[in-house]
Amino acid sequence: MDKYIKFLSKRTNKLKASEIRELLKLTEGKNIISFAGGLPDPTVFDKDKLIEIARDVLENFSDKALQYSPTRGVSVFIETLKNFLLDKGINISNNDDIIVTTGSQEAIYLASTVLIDRRDAIIVEEPTYLAALNVFKYLESRLMPVPIDDDGMNTEVLEDYLRKLREDGRRVKLAYVNPTCQNPSGTTMSIARRKHLIELASQHDFLILEDDPYGYFIFEGERPIPLKSLDRDERVLYMSTFSKILAPGLRIGWAVGPAEIIRYMELAKQNVDLHSSTFSQYIVMEAIMRGVVDATIERARSLYKVKRDAMLEALEQNMHTTATWTKPIGGLFIMVTLKKKIDTKKLLLKAIEKGVAYVPGGSFYVSRRGSNTMRLNYSYPTLTQIREGINRLALTIKEST
Amino acid sequence: MDKYIKFLSKRTNKLKASEIRELLKLTEGKNIISFAGGLPDPTVFDKDKLIEIARDVLENFSDKALQYSPTRGVSVFIETLKNFLLDKGINISNNDDIIVTTGSQEAIYLASTVLIDRRDAIIVEEPTYLAALNVFKYLESRLMPVPIDDDGMNTEVLEDYLRKLREDGRRVKLAYVNPTCQNPSGTTMSIARRKHLIELASQHDFLILEDDPYGYFIFEGERPIPLKSLDRDERVLYMSTFSKILAPGLRIGWAVGPAEIIRYMELAKQNVDLHSSTFSQYIVMEAIMRGVVDATIERARSLYKVKRDAMLEALEQNMHTTATWTKPIGGLFIMVTLKKKIDTKKLLLKAIEKGVAYVPGGSFYVSRRGSNTMRLNYSYPTLTQIREGINRLALTIKEST
Repeated sequence: MDKYIKFLSKRTNKLKASEIRELLKLTEGKNIISFAGGLPDPTVFDKDKLIEIARDVLENFSDKALQYSPTRGVSVFIETLKNFLLDKGINISNNDDIIVTTGSQEAIYLASTVLIDRRDAIIVEEPTYLAALNVFKYLESRLMPVPIDDDGMNTEVLEDYLRKLREDGRRVKLAYVNPTCQNPSGTTMSIARRKHLIELASQHDFLILEDDPYGYFIFEGERPIPLKSLDRDERVLYMSTFSKILAPGLRIGWAVGPAEIIRYMELAKQNVDLHSSTFSQYIVMEAIMRGVVDATIERARSLYKVKRDAMLEALEQNMHTTATWTKPIGGLFIMVTLKKKIDTKKLLLKAIEKGVAYVPGGSFYVSRRGSNTMRLNYSYPTLTQIREGINRLALTIKEST
Repeated sequence: MDKYIKFLSKRTNKLKASEIRELLKLTEGKNIISFAGGLPDPTVFDKDKLIEIARDVLENFSDKALQYSPTRGVSVFIETLKNFLLDKGINISNNDDIIVTTGSQEAIYLASTVLIDRRDAIIVEEPTYLAALNVFKYLESRLMPVPIDDDGMNTEVLEDYLRKLREDGRRVKLAYVNPTCQNPSGTTMSIARRKHLIELASQHDFLILEDDPYGYFIFEGERPIPLKSLDRDERVLYMSTFSKILAPGLRIGWAVGPAEIIRYMELAKQNVDLHSSTFSQYIVMEAIMRGVVDATIERARSLYKVKRDAMLEALEQNMHTTATWTKPIGGLFIMVTLKKKIDTKKLLLKAIEKGVAYVPGGSFYVSRRGSNTMRLNYSYPTLTQIREGINRLALTIKEST
């Protein structure tokens, strides 16, 4: 069926179906414990409050909430979002610095199309968020992976890197980072490194895309200060989403950054989808104002903490001789590194046979590293599934070594 | 504030703010009758039924409706959509032929990025839908306008055009058409021309993007058969939206076409926004199943017919000496052509002073033609506003001739 190939644009060749996604389709309809997804636990959603809110929004604002709305976002929602962010330590000087997006994926996409040309050098953490990596690859950027350790992206390595690039007369356009409870690794960048990264951005004149879907529900201690709040030089474009702190199905995210860049993102969004769901924006607005978002954050925080603890404990009990793993302070993921050089992509088929699934870590790497790693999600499975799933996984690994 | 210019991608230069949009900002907060928009009349929305539906969806499916969902669309919704379309005369052989989008704008965008390379020749009606034109311009395609008359795009002219291109060794990749109650002109392509266009696509080997937001609420007579239903050669990619037949604020559109192209649109959509609002998809699904969409269609049909008649009558009474206009059988727009070569862009400022606004027709043209035309929307203003607005417009024109 190659009839349509000649009609495809050249860039369409850069759109690749994920082989992992294909592998994971094998798990559908089977009795398999999946650590592969990245879904919130639906018990976190406040169904009853959302029923009330949906009713009140339609009762009071149906003419507006069901109608077309500005590309930039519904203005009363932007105002509410601004106050919400202020309350969370993100100060926005100007409404022109915000755009509402169809999930944070669209924020990543719009920022990328507005900023990235073919061959532009983009710094990414290694490993990093797969769906951002796919956008950067689609735009044919030159990806420059910088390794992460327990303190997040190693900015010393980055500094060396930048120095060498400068010597070669090359420059970096932007750095994409997910500094807090990173997907996939679960690590959090230290404050010292955050400051260092900001300094490097100024010295070497690049922008920072800060992707922060998890920073709102840290399990213990203070929320690490967002890069955006450290940014004195207006180099940070911050993006996040209500997917984990209210409900992903509403598909509402946002970006905050320099008004000039947001303005171009708005123009790009006119082409892409005209605007995000007005109804969803009104629902999120009311959910913020009625404290439903904050209550959801509290539920997510305590539930995911228990689940993280259960997974860490199960790993300790079953895999301490065969693997090491990260200890996230929040977010949805733990990354496991096998001590032996077992290819976790090959191992996945065996794991599925044993009734457990995960995402092989290699997908999140730009380089060939990471073939002995795996990303485990603890937010969606139940506690029983977490314990049993880690058992199955440990067994799969033992039988393969 | 040119600090960020060096960070912008080259393609970002193709993103232009609309000068018309800027002009129309002058009307905000003033007592101005606007024929400039393209909004449904909100009295068409079924608030009470939608309150019930939103409640029932959250009551019964909250775990799914508030959760992430497949990029292609929620499967039960796709099934419902397929039946809905079958009922409207659009037969879909395979679920792989459908994708749900964030409004039909996203369908246009995804299809365009998947198909269009720089300098590809794209046939468009002249005038045509502005937001599609902007996407094609952004992708740096070579636009080939074909004039429309009372029977829609003149396919005889197109045929000549295609013959000459072939002689020059050039080819056309696709034709974008809005054949039923076109935006901006309000004209509808005759059946003979639809057939002719389909033949030409086969003969000259190009694809057709059929944009059909208005075909579901024709005021009188039968709905003209969609190109999609005439297509024996699988050349038509059909797209539409629930914006006018349920509510724009839900932001749910769709595309139907060859599975191979839809598959690439799905991959592109993974990058763009991951998926469209799950909650909105469930609401639209229930609205179809409970007959709310069909009831909305009936309300829109009868209300807009009365409004169209009022506008045609007011035009006849006030402007028969100074202008001609189209007589749409559906949709939201009438296009007016002034007999004298008055520049309607310049005239707009005077019209705004008199308390009436419209969109100058030139924006919808690729060529320099159309400078003496204007697009008038009749769906949103009230009957009183329609009569008074046309009065004001007639006065503005008289004073300028």
